[in-house]
Amino acid sequence: MKTTMLAAVMTGPAEIRMQERTVPVPGPGQVLIRLEYVGICGSDLHTYEKDWGNRVTGPHILGHECAGTVAALGEGVRHPAPGDRVAIEPGRSCGACEFCKTGRYNLCNSVRFLAAPNTPASPQVDGAFCEYLAHDANLCFKLPDKVSTLEGALIEPLAVGFHAASQGGARPGQAAIVVGAGCIGLLSMMALRICGVPKVFVLDIMENRLAKAAELGADAVVNSRDPAVAAGQLLELTGGCGCDLAIDTAGISAVAGATIRALKKGGSLVLVGYSPDGSLTIPLRDVINKEITLKSVFRYRNIYPTAIESVAAGLVDLRRIVTNAYPLSEAPRAMEEGLRDRAGIVKAVLRIC
Amino acid sequence: MKTTMLAAVMTGPAEIRMQERTVPVPGPGQVLIRLEYVGICGSDLHTYEKDWGNRVTGPHILGHECAGTVAALGEGVRHPAPGDRVAIEPGRSCGACEFCKTGRYNLCNSVRFLAAPNTPASPQVDGAFCEYLAHDANLCFKLPDKVSTLEGALIEPLAVGFHAASQGGARPGQAAIVVGAGCIGLLSMMALRICGVPKVFVLDIMENRLAKAAELGADAVVNSRDPAVAAGQLLELTGGCGCDLAIDTAGISAVAGATIRALKKGGSLVLVGYSPDGSLTIPLRDVINKEITLKSVFRYRNIYPTAIESVAAGLVDLRRIVTNAYPLSEAPRAMEEGLRDRAGIVKAVLRIC
Amino acid sequence: MKTTMLAAVMTGPAEIRMQERTVPVPGPGQVLIRLEYVGICGSDLHTYEKDWGNRVTGPHILGHECAGTVAALGEGVRHPAPGDRVAIEPGRSCGACEFCKTGRYNLCNSVRFLAAPNTPASPQVDGAFCEYLAHDANLCFKLPDKVSTLEGALIEPLAVGFHAASQGGARPGQAAIVVGAGCIGLLSMMALRICGVPKVFVLDIMENRLAKAAELGADAVVNSRDPAVAAGQLLELTGGCGCDLAIDTAGISAVAGATIRALKKGGSLVLVGYSPDGSLTIPLRDVINKEITLKSVFRYRNIYPTAIESVAAGLVDLRRIVTNAYPLSEAPRAMEEGLRDRAGIVKAVLRIC
Amino acid sequence: MKTTMLAAVMTGPAEIRMQERTVPVPGPGQVLIRLEYVGICGSDLHTYEKDWGNRVTGPHILGHECAGTVAALGEGVRHPAPGDRVAIEPGRSCGACEFCKTGRYNLCNSVRFLAAPNTPASPQVDGAFCEYLAHDANLCFKLPDKVSTLEGALIEPLAVGFHAASQGGARPGQAAIVVGAGCIGLLSMMALRICGVPKVFVLDIMENRLAKAAELGADAVVNSRDPAVAAGQLLELTGGCGCDLAIDTAGISAVAGATIRALKKGGSLVLVGYSPDGSLTIPLRDVINKEITLKSVFRYRNIYPTAIESVAAGLVDLRRIVTNAYPLSEAPRAMEEGLRDRAGIVKAVLRIC
Repeated sequence: MKTTMLAAVMTGPAEIRMQERTVPVPGPGQVLIRLEYVGICGSDLHTYEKDWGNRVTGPHILGHECAGTVAALGEGVRHPAPGDRVAIEPGRSCGACEFCKTGRYNLCNSVRFLAAPNTPASPQVDGAFCEYLAHDANLCFKLPDKVSTLEGALIEPLAVGFHAASQGGARPGQAAIVVGAGCIGLLSMMALRICGVPKVFVLDIMENRLAKAAELGADAVVNSRDPAVAAGQLLELTGGCGCDLAIDTAGISAVAGATIRALKKGGSLVLVGYSPDGSLTIPLRDVINKEITLKSVFRYRNIYPTAIESVAAGLVDLRRIVTNAYPLSEAPRAMEEGLRDRAGIVKAVLRIC
Repeated sequence: MKTTMLAAVMTGPAEIRMQERTVPVPGPGQVLIRLEYVGICGSDLHTYEKDWGNRVTGPHILGHECAGTVAALGEGVRHPAPGDRVAIEPGRSCGACEFCKTGRYNLCNSVRFLAAPNTPASPQVDGAFCEYLAHDANLCFKLPDKVSTLEGALIEPLAVGFHAASQGGARPGQAAIVVGAGCIGLLSMMALRICGVPKVFVLDIMENRLAKAAELGADAVVNSRDPAVAAGQLLELTGGCGCDLAIDTAGISAVAGATIRALKKGGSLVLVGYSPDGSLTIPLRDVINKEITLKSVFRYRNIYPTAIESVAAGLVDLRRIVTNAYPLSEAPRAMEEGLRDRAGIVKAVLRIC
Repeated sequence: MKTTMLAAVMTGPAEIRMQERTVPVPGPGQVLIRLEYVGICGSDLHTYEKDWGNRVTGPHILGHECAGTVAALGEGVRHPAPGDRVAIEPGRSCGACEFCKTGRYNLCNSVRFLAAPNTPASPQVDGAFCEYLAHDANLCFKLPDKVSTLEGALIEPLAVGFHAASQGGARPGQAAIVVGAGCIGLLSMMALRICGVPKVFVLDIMENRLAKAAELGADAVVNSRDPAVAAGQLLELTGGCGCDLAIDTAGISAVAGATIRALKKGGSLVLVGYSPDGSLTIPLRDVINKEITLKSVFRYRNIYPTAIESVAAGLVDLRRIVTNAYPLSEAPRAMEEGLRDRAGIVKAVLRIC
Repeated sequence: MKTTMLAAVMTGPAEIRMQERTVPVPGPGQVLIRLEYVGICGSDLHTYEKDWGNRVTGPHILGHECAGTVAALGEGVRHPAPGDRVAIEPGRSCGACEFCKTGRYNLCNSVRFLAAPNTPASPQVDGAFCEYLAHDANLCFKLPDKVSTLEGALIEPLAVGFHAASQGGARPGQAAIVVGAGCIGLLSMMALRICGVPKVFVLDIMENRLAKAAELGADAVVNSRDPAVAAGQLLELTGGCGCDLAIDTAGISAVAGATIRALKKGGSLVLVGYSPDGSLTIPLRDVINKEITLKSVFRYRNIYPTAIESVAAGLVDLRRIVTNAYPLSEAPRAMEEGLRDRAGIVKAVLRIC
């Protein structure tokens, strides 16, 4: 086995260089994975563009949406086995705090998440823009034959959409709104489909994104440039009844307000996307009079096996979300293009081997 | 409009005669429906064969799985409108008791259910083996263009399957068992599919029923003649993990026990089918050690709109469940054949117009 | 029986006159109640002060928090029985819509609520500032011997607090915040106690209200004049852990934001109080990063029997909330004093007989 | 610090000898606890009487209901601190399996539970009939000043009762049945009280146990010698309505059947107690017609902090459950008396220092 590997290392503000690194050694309970695909997430682009010298204080490897093949086992590991193809859940939580013990490990204060910058709770963690990764065996989920490692890498953002659908109580018979037709919005739509939701309407202000949503199966797409008009259209699409559920990936008060007006009494709005200024203004009178619930989504929990099974069962085709692919060695170009065309690129991935 | 109609009237033990009856007049809040299809349920066969002179004390019209077209409106009704094609929910509950007010109207002590025999709470109620029915407008659910009235009539048994799936907490990612490949078992399988369940295994002791289950899309079928062997096969099908959920439409202790052994810890068994002697023996030690939940199903509640939307969205094809169709005038023959071939006939329907 | 009765009738802006009215006749399914106590709610004061000529377009009787003794039965009523003392749930819902059938009748679009002004869905409805009321039997809940009709009248606002506690998932072991020490805030605190919540902290900006909260059993009271300071104090009170749950009866963005900062990850904020301008600004970044849930409360549903049982069991003493009592004939004075001293009067009631 | 300690060691069938043992050294993430109280559980008596040579294959220390004071910290432990008084949760789960990650760690296949005999998953584990215990820090819950270590030791059986109440959805307003007035039954009653349940009825066949239940606050006690009579009495106690919830600690089919008959439609039966032959026969027709849910209880999860807070808040007085106390050195006599008077001894404890 190789002892060195190629890694795309962030070395300055908006700067990535290809470097040689030592292949990590899996610790007890860990496996070594030969990575095959890693997705580029909006948070990678954000860190690349903004965090150097601040939340990133030294060489840093980005990337947390990844899959590959098990190359070696650390001490005490019985599965997955060498040669197994696996999707990798990137967050290692403590297992001992109140949140972990109640099954909400995504809220663990001590979580170490691939490619995370410095936080009060943990120093920065290297990610997956590289050839090999040592990771906890219980976070490496074996892929069935029908699921490729490309799809395996996309389980991570699908898990966000799934958690959003789950937080919103998505189920058969509902009409749902997805606000924002970016990657997370589109994967939320797919997750809603998996949950049996028969009607999904997608909002965005950019026509090319709406076209993509329609292509991927939205029942209707609505331009939200004028939020009041959009609310009216959504109500019309449901014969005046309103929708049961909305997933907001945009964080824009005016659109969130319109979405709430398009919800049925008792409906739910799931907050997934941060707003530019960190706050959101909601129409409290409507919220109370309609007894709306607002849920929120921080990453995901206990979703990987379900997401993988759903892809294996053919309930969604994750590959249709990928618009751009680059070899690992072209990570610098991939990041540059990602910054330049945030609207056009739905999902870019790096092919590692 | 006609003032008389044809009705298939139970007039004695295992005796149905075609008679002329007065077309009913819809009361306030009711609509008159020109019926088009009515399914024959196992409970119809049971009443036909056993209940005369006992729970049925005079001429009685069977049938509660029905759909048709709205022909006239009673006072105060705004929708559905004349000409609307509707599926009919057969139970009229009181709206005022504890159960109705908490949304569990299927448990209402005063419910009047189409074709119900005498009970302590209510005298026998005529059903839908006839041309016209007056029924509460809020229990008549408009069918979208994509859903036929044949499918509309089958919404009723699908609702039972759906309530079973719902009681069991069916959701994406699960492995589920359906015990019994009769009509309710097969519709439970379809309901599980609608809920996104990727793996459904069906148990029965008759090979022709298992073949039907396989034809309708079961991931695997298992003969339960030897329950212990069946439990082993189910465990093997899940790689030793066990299933999350089982729906039991059979009520046989040995098979229920095997099913519990094939469940994962924390799993659920949903009791839908009555046993011959009215009791069930469960392996308490396993139930406790695995912290199994047993849920039960009495009819359904708040499911029709969801079931209709799911059929309209193409998530299941209800028509594939129908094995036999008869004109209303041949109701006597349909009942006779139903009694004679309970195993072979999955679902028979009467075409009314 | 008397055929006329005394009623306090709103006859103009901030004007109530004592008039003689005909005693109503209970319709089918209704009972006639000889009222004994009726509470004065903030919404009564609001309508009295602001709604004449607008949402109130003619003589109008206020009051919806009431209890009394059954004086006569309408057709078909079997219980309650004449002489039974009852608490009255003021909203008559349709029983047939989606919301009613799913047990969420408080969201019924056709609800007719005692003392409600005109709405798009219903003309104004007379309330309970009078001697007799005809009301649906199933909304009149018999009081056990241990519960007085004064307490019976207060079941209504307690039900709001209970619904808030219920929406927030209140349960043993939690630390909870109540924002606002007015009547609904204090009754929310009592409801939290009934649910077994061991730690309740109350926020307000007025010291006399905080003193009342402390007197009624708050574990700690915190002045929220400086919201950031209040958030710090709340965190300190929980050893830095944060609270599980908050009930906001105030609708002030800065305080709601502080409350969210004082919540534990995964916690819930229940929105009960309207804001002056109808909107609320929340710290979205905190909400998402802590995966906070926001629930809301519109009246209540299916709570009366539970609230009555809890009072009967001695779990709370509702009478301690009453600060002012007037005979019905002094309703005009009661309303005037209510307007003048909103902060000092926690709960005023009218004694009717 | 001492390096040797006294331990009550099971050395043969129904044989315990006091021996000297080495004080354990806390590993990383562990603390050393100077034990103060340990309860004697029915499972200890069962193992003592029956398991030698079978499930116990060598010297074995019993006892898993314990509390004490932290004496030393293992590597990396920040809390609890030396001198803290703690209640000890006895099960160490893996933290990495499906059950642990979803918050249901009581179902972990690899759990190592104090005093557990040999199982397929784990060899026998020594328990707490001794002076010192090394245990995971995150399973040692600090006791507030108001809670004694005697009460701390009883948090364990209270946790079982709490999990039963929780599994049954106990909440304010309900009427509940507890079947069996032994230790777990009585603690289930206390847990129901903490959850705000206003009416608790207790069933048993022994009058002295029923008297104890009444003394500890049961609203009514019912002798279940004749189950049909008991069912009738329970219905009468609720004015014919039936109870919402039952907790069965006895596992006797006839009594469980009577309990189900005394439940309201939609009610829940929680199975806590094993039956002598490992199975239970339930009235399936009633279960389905009333849509009863059966839940089950295997130990507990995520309950200790809540149970401790509830005791600290004075919601229950755990000490009233203790009928017998012995010094550790008299463990052999305590076990002998325990076997001889199972009915009379509600809860015996060993005082360790």
